[in-house]
Amino acid sequence: MAVRVQPISALRWDGRRLSVLDQTLLPAREEWLALGGAADTADAIRRLAVRGAPNIGITGAYGLAMELTARPGLGTLEAAADLLRDARPTAVNLAWAVDRVRDAALGAGIATMAAAARAAAQSIHAEEDAAGEAIAVAGAAVLGDARRVLTHCNTGALAAGARGSALGIVLALAAGREDVSVLVSETRPLLQGARLTVWELERSGVPHALIVDGAAAGLMRRGEVDAVVVGCDRVAANGDVANKVGTYAHALAARAAGIPFVVAGPTSTIDLATPDGESIAIEERDGDEVRYGGGALLTLPGTPVRNPAFDVTPAALVSALVTERGVAAPVDASSVAALLA
Amino acid sequence: MAVRVQPISALRWDGRRLSVLDQTLLPAREEWLALGGAADTADAIRRLAVRGAPNIGITGAYGLAMELTARPGLGTLEAAADLLRDARPTAVNLAWAVDRVRDAALGAGIATMAAAARAAAQSIHAEEDAAGEAIAVAGAAVLGDARRVLTHCNTGALAAGARGSALGIVLALAAGREDVSVLVSETRPLLQGARLTVWELERSGVPHALIVDGAAAGLMRRGEVDAVVVGCDRVAANGDVANKVGTYAHALAARAAGIPFVVAGPTSTIDLATPDGESIAIEERDGDEVRYGGGALLTLPGTPVRNPAFDVTPAALVSALVTERGVAAPVDASSVAALLA
Repeated sequence: MAVRVQPISALRWDGRRLSVLDQTLLPAREEWLALGGAADTADAIRRLAVRGAPNIGITGAYGLAMELTARPGLGTLEAAADLLRDARPTAVNLAWAVDRVRDAALGAGIATMAAAARAAAQSIHAEEDAAGEAIAVAGAAVLGDARRVLTHCNTGALAAGARGSALGIVLALAAGREDVSVLVSETRPLLQGARLTVWELERSGVPHALIVDGAAAGLMRRGEVDAVVVGCDRVAANGDVANKVGTYAHALAARAAGIPFVVAGPTSTIDLATPDGESIAIEERDGDEVRYGGGALLTLPGTPVRNPAFDVTPAALVSALVTERGVAAPVDASSVAALLA
Repeated sequence: MAVRVQPISALRWDGRRLSVLDQTLLPAREEWLALGGAADTADAIRRLAVRGAPNIGITGAYGLAMELTARPGLGTLEAAADLLRDARPTAVNLAWAVDRVRDAALGAGIATMAAAARAAAQSIHAEEDAAGEAIAVAGAAVLGDARRVLTHCNTGALAAGARGSALGIVLALAAGREDVSVLVSETRPLLQGARLTVWELERSGVPHALIVDGAAAGLMRRGEVDAVVVGCDRVAANGDVANKVGTYAHALAARAAGIPFVVAGPTSTIDLATPDGESIAIEERDGDEVRYGGGALLTLPGTPVRNPAFDVTPAALVSALVTERGVAAPVDASSVAALLA
């Protein structure tokens, strides 16, 4: 029987208020958090109830619009915009989305300020959904008749609008087919694969199996994977890709196995100001993320830890870069520049 | 200040009784288990209180000797040998060691049966310790002036005699030097790196840091590792190496980074009856090993899982195979055969 993919959304806008699926509780509990203004929205972003750069941007935009709906005025606007922008200072989408709503509100009079802000936030949401849709369709075409796909981390509706990026491609590939299955690498230390991607695939009805990160390479070598699809946190001008730690090992194994390694993301993740992967600073996060798993201590307390959150995959290992503006393949400085032209 | 490496042993023989460090409780608690006969020894092996092929063999040998000391006789001999041999039927060292003690006992009279069995078990123990010593010395010479070493799983005294195999090399390298440090990949799903190797390095006083398995490749690419050293579960006639899942990805990353990837183990792990890696059946273990970590549920209950316990690294990626009978480098059918000649 062909898989009928069920859509999932982590964000619900009813015209006045935004509700977000609290990702800190998944997969054990599915609870929606009703937001009403800038303070609770900033808090939800800060404590990772909402995650994924596109979804953080959409949520921040609605947060400012809701604040202006409740308390319109110029003082409110600037204070709320500052609060939201600072909720996660490194997520470039957040500042961009908040500023766009702020500019729309400033361009309207006091009487229509809130309505203009709501309209701007809804536009951002619709554009992110449309980008995900375009990525899903283009990526599924790149994968063609691949049946057994491996993905890493979480890049679905929980991260990016209604469709997601890499996981959106997988779901588009599975829609209407009965032969697509997904290997999900758990993605230590924070287990986004085990906690979030497994949950999305279960909800979507797509056959899948969870593996430890270290099992991916051996399964590729044994011919059990047709393609690898992952998202991206930043793409440098030369096409080098920074993504969740563990991605680079998957790329090396895909190349050794002779299978495609496909990277997906909106063009907003391409940063022409970063010449190459070596120029990308890799965030080192708290060692307790490694010392613990699912709340349990896994090693000696206080063991020294190295915890880089990302790694860099060189452009030469990337078979295709799929964006809402088209596909770069092979991936190099000129094909990346062409996506933005 | 130069590191003064403290010896660790997981097995203590007082001439009459064997005590083993209970590895199921590490690193949280260090408790010794006093064994007295075949039944409790078989139980300790079965529930993984003792692990690592060499240590399982030594323990089984002492188990039979202790049983004959308490209850000498031919009936005891065969029943106890069967019980011990079956404790972990796939560990080839166990059957080999038990049979050697049995043969020694059979060769003696009833009056000296127990003494002969104890002597045979002590010989096996001494030979495994000597093999580890030879591997440590040869491996340290192969690594030369490497400073930053990465290892996977646990291959120390907790697994293999007084010195271990790959971790024995690392400790030999660190002895008398002050510049050696070790990156330990946690080794999901069962976390032998996080639980056991970290504990051994802490006890030995060698500087180290724990990483998630997926972080190894990126750190190698960034030039933060001088060499990778791992153990082996089986070496095929052509030099392909089966080892703990996650090993192959480390080998690919080492090759891409241009650093040595060294495999260590006793010649008893070389199996000339297995022509190549593709002929090695890879054990798939229980899915709950992946669903749980440190006792905590990490995903949806009952999520489908693939859990291969091992993977295969092709001989071409192995810089050197270090055994107690010498070093094969490059690793191929003729250099492997020469080790056994």
